[in-house]
Amino acid sequence: MMGDMRQETADILQEMDILRLVDHHCHGVLPRDLGRSDFEGFLTEVAAPSPLGGTLFDSQIGFALRRWCAPVLDLEAHVSPDEYLARRAALGAAEVNRRFLAASGLDGLCVDTGYTPEPLLEPAELGELAGAQGHEIVRLEDLAEKVLADGVSASALPGEVRSRLAVRAEHAVGAKSIAAYRVGLELSGERPSAQEVKTAAERLYRQAERALAGGSGPPRIADETLHRFLIWSAVDCEMPIQFHIAYGDSDVDLHRADPARLAPLLRELEPTNTPVLLLHNYPYQRHAGYLAQVFKNVFVDLSLATHNVGHRAPAVLAELLELAPFGKVLFASDAYGLAEHYYLGALLFRRSLGRFLDEGVAEGAWTRSDAARVAHLIASENARRVYKLDDADQ
Amino acid sequence: MMGDMRQETADILQEMDILRLVDHHCHGVLPRDLGRSDFEGFLTEVAAPSPLGGTLFDSQIGFALRRWCAPVLDLEAHVSPDEYLARRAALGAAEVNRRFLAASGLDGLCVDTGYTPEPLLEPAELGELAGAQGHEIVRLEDLAEKVLADGVSASALPGEVRSRLAVRAEHAVGAKSIAAYRVGLELSGERPSAQEVKTAAERLYRQAERALAGGSGPPRIADETLHRFLIWSAVDCEMPIQFHIAYGDSDVDLHRADPARLAPLLRELEPTNTPVLLLHNYPYQRHAGYLAQVFKNVFVDLSLATHNVGHRAPAVLAELLELAPFGKVLFASDAYGLAEHYYLGALLFRRSLGRFLDEGVAEGAWTRSDAARVAHLIASENARRVYKLDDADQ
Amino acid sequence: MMGDMRQETADILQEMDILRLVDHHCHGVLPRDLGRSDFEGFLTEVAAPSPLGGTLFDSQIGFALRRWCAPVLDLEAHVSPDEYLARRAALGAAEVNRRFLAASGLDGLCVDTGYTPEPLLEPAELGELAGAQGHEIVRLEDLAEKVLADGVSASALPGEVRSRLAVRAEHAVGAKSIAAYRVGLELSGERPSAQEVKTAAERLYRQAERALAGGSGPPRIADETLHRFLIWSAVDCEMPIQFHIAYGDSDVDLHRADPARLAPLLRELEPTNTPVLLLHNYPYQRHAGYLAQVFKNVFVDLSLATHNVGHRAPAVLAELLELAPFGKVLFASDAYGLAEHYYLGALLFRRSLGRFLDEGVAEGAWTRSDAARVAHLIASENARRVYKLDDADQ
Repeated sequence: MMGDMRQETADILQEMDILRLVDHHCHGVLPRDLGRSDFEGFLTEVAAPSPLGGTLFDSQIGFALRRWCAPVLDLEAHVSPDEYLARRAALGAAEVNRRFLAASGLDGLCVDTGYTPEPLLEPAELGELAGAQGHEIVRLEDLAEKVLADGVSASALPGEVRSRLAVRAEHAVGAKSIAAYRVGLELSGERPSAQEVKTAAERLYRQAERALAGGSGPPRIADETLHRFLIWSAVDCEMPIQFHIAYGDSDVDLHRADPARLAPLLRELEPTNTPVLLLHNYPYQRHAGYLAQVFKNVFVDLSLATHNVGHRAPAVLAELLELAPFGKVLFASDAYGLAEHYYLGALLFRRSLGRFLDEGVAEGAWTRSDAARVAHLIASENARRVYKLDDADQ
Repeated sequence: MMGDMRQETADILQEMDILRLVDHHCHGVLPRDLGRSDFEGFLTEVAAPSPLGGTLFDSQIGFALRRWCAPVLDLEAHVSPDEYLARRAALGAAEVNRRFLAASGLDGLCVDTGYTPEPLLEPAELGELAGAQGHEIVRLEDLAEKVLADGVSASALPGEVRSRLAVRAEHAVGAKSIAAYRVGLELSGERPSAQEVKTAAERLYRQAERALAGGSGPPRIADETLHRFLIWSAVDCEMPIQFHIAYGDSDVDLHRADPARLAPLLRELEPTNTPVLLLHNYPYQRHAGYLAQVFKNVFVDLSLATHNVGHRAPAVLAELLELAPFGKVLFASDAYGLAEHYYLGALLFRRSLGRFLDEGVAEGAWTRSDAARVAHLIASENARRVYKLDDADQ
Repeated sequence: MMGDMRQETADILQEMDILRLVDHHCHGVLPRDLGRSDFEGFLTEVAAPSPLGGTLFDSQIGFALRRWCAPVLDLEAHVSPDEYLARRAALGAAEVNRRFLAASGLDGLCVDTGYTPEPLLEPAELGELAGAQGHEIVRLEDLAEKVLADGVSASALPGEVRSRLAVRAEHAVGAKSIAAYRVGLELSGERPSAQEVKTAAERLYRQAERALAGGSGPPRIADETLHRFLIWSAVDCEMPIQFHIAYGDSDVDLHRADPARLAPLLRELEPTNTPVLLLHNYPYQRHAGYLAQVFKNVFVDLSLATHNVGHRAPAVLAELLELAPFGKVLFASDAYGLAEHYYLGALLFRRSLGRFLDEGVAEGAWTRSDAARVAHLIASENARRVYKLDDADQ
């Protein structure tokens, strides 16, 4: 009996290995080669390793990379970091990117193109390498900061932002807010009035003038009213809206990026039927699952965390799936810089979801066919429905 | 050796199946039949499914219901939602309620009677169906709002609340505060003075007058002073006090309902020896366990979450039991509307506690006889002691 | 194949049993004998058991103690609490302390000497019993409160604190802040100016005068500026700084002691290369792991929780190790009062780390040799590097 169950579950895991995924939140990868320190700087959310703490390869993601990525570069699993990086350099960035993207088994990518401190592959290039359609996600703050940098006047800024966004919305499949990084998630639910937006825009211009006078570049948007203005502008364009939640680099105040703090805004967004996608969520995956249950338009993922927690990914995903209805959970890698992130994110997610569904079948919690149906929902169908990707593909 | 251990643990799980429980926090169930959309609306904490997110049957609770509840209605486990609901309708609400309550294996119920947007079964009716004693829990805000609706003057309100509560306390076994829903849990520890209560009551009356003038009904109590007044009134009546904590519907701000925020109040309540019962707690079950350890009068449960997280219930319960002393943990379902909640809550709790104790025996963490003793503490003895149910039964 | 893996993992667990640990955060133990109520009062973080909640032996730590500590006192595992305490009394505190410290397998102890409501063994005494070097950690608030009690003037206090700390820093290996207990962890990142410190010192003196006039003792430091002053004074002495985080007794407001709240201060401390050690962290171990990843100078442990959660310790440690790089994790017991805490902390930590590394080998997440290397990092090498213990030993 137990033997039969294990047999059946092994089948599910095998099937998961070929289950194609839509990666609904990711970034470009570097077209250049990387030395060891540089590579470690892109591996996790700290910019570089430190002598105090030792190599970042000694971590869950470091071990996951040596185990799973090495074979893609024709190496034995668990080779040393230096052997791995030597082989990576010998193959060259283009070939490395090609191999990992191709091996990720993706069926679609929604790429945030708004964070490019250095050149990264574009959505179309990523899509080509992956053998999948590459879509664009508009980072709202980046769009507004470009309007500011273009010298548009304070009074014209709101209109210009809205009109540029409307143009982008013709092709982009969604928008993204990084309010969490700038002011935290305790945003008012109210749509700001035209006067409030005007006042906030003037505030931003005075900041910009001071910055210019001080010799620094244009300021970043970090203003509760302006973040809300951007969000409601995206609502008006009928764009699904992604929110950076919780886990990120040291610029974020983790507790101020707890998704629970979004509740007042979510209450106002629910009647608009705008899909809201809570990204990352770690370590608040249970809070996010709660929001996905109680708000009709809230969706969740476990991006960034999935590859960073390595072989603990199944334990973390299982927590997200406690309250979140299975029609509200999506896959995303949040890959950035390293093509390995795409591959690890997809592989660890498949294994985690497979393990979860597997154990449920083994315990009799659901049937084999229900498990397969849920796998497809989470792997790609939920993303296709939310972002209307089948329309976008045409 | 390993074989012997498994043998022994299997015995514990079997014994758990017949372990009778006191459900110290629950509500009435609907006496009427339900269509699919209506049923889904009572299944979880969102009022209805949405086309965006798909059916709520695709969730942990949905699968748990198809697995465990279907056989109680003479169906195969895992029948489709529509087959389940057709059989449910054919049997009729009265028979369905009878079957689930009878199958729950309860030895007592403490029913919150203060939330009835539509008619629900009363404590005595529930008790009769369950073959157990039904007790009442007084919802404090509901009692005060009824005093307000009865047109008592502002100056008389505090006295009238206290006197009605004293009458209710003769039969009810405890009180419940829903401050978490209204103002969050960051309550001052101080007992409000008569003058502060008077001022707050006058504030409430002005709200009521405005509401009346505006054509809406009497206001809900959402006033830090009044919630505290109600809590201290219950202390004076020597009633155990339940607190809504964390998980609930979208009206609650989850992070403001973190039980840790109650600490200032708990410090003041501890010397009074008033039992304080922290309900639900998910996803803050570890925070709640901490409070149960460090405050002599604090008790905890995992109600509502137990049936909502389905086959993950053992993982969540194990977290509650990390710090909470085993003399401070109670069972509750928080069943509401659907009789299935009673059955699933009890069944999943038994399985979770059985698994927990089981694994401890298998690892040698405790003996078989200690495990059995702890099972009885948590299943019913702690509740009997806290609520003095043996006195109440007479 | 599976058999081989289990064989291999069994080896790791066996090796862990003899893996010596540096306990980087602990306290003295009592030299006196204890009755049952007294013993229960030192067992967990509540000062005494209560009739309402039953004995504290019915808890994870209680069962862990009966299982693991009884054999050290020549008893069968799982003897009753009374049998255990009778044997403990018969052996006497000196012998009991000797046995547990000797059996803990420690290679070094960093003892916080700043909390001694009654006489406790000193670092050198503890070290002698453990067969290891005992080091001192200076509790910053205790040092400053002693300066205050010595009647130094307000204007001289800052200088006197700094000069006493410099003297202590010659031998002590680190400093500790308990700001979490006094004002919470939402500390500004800025180094306070001399003027701000002067003003705060004067405030403290006025408090002290009022306290004296009122007949009470000198006040405790609970002033955001003074806590920061103490922290920056330790930075200037190049001392690693420990922070009390989260789990402790009922004096702490758990949510205000969330390590995420330290981010503004951590951003300022990072460029100084001062090691920052986040103690306990439960139930925020994942938040702490995040900080250990994104800040170069942040280190984490799971002290106090490890022995309190008993056989759940492996589950909790695995969460800490999701994001925390393995070069940033340390062992500590936070033993206080009872020598059993030392033994349980060390034993449960070894088992937890062994289980974690074990399962990784079994799943192929890392190799046997990498696991052994990580075990030594976390057991002692990280502590030696951070506190420069090899220098201190000379």
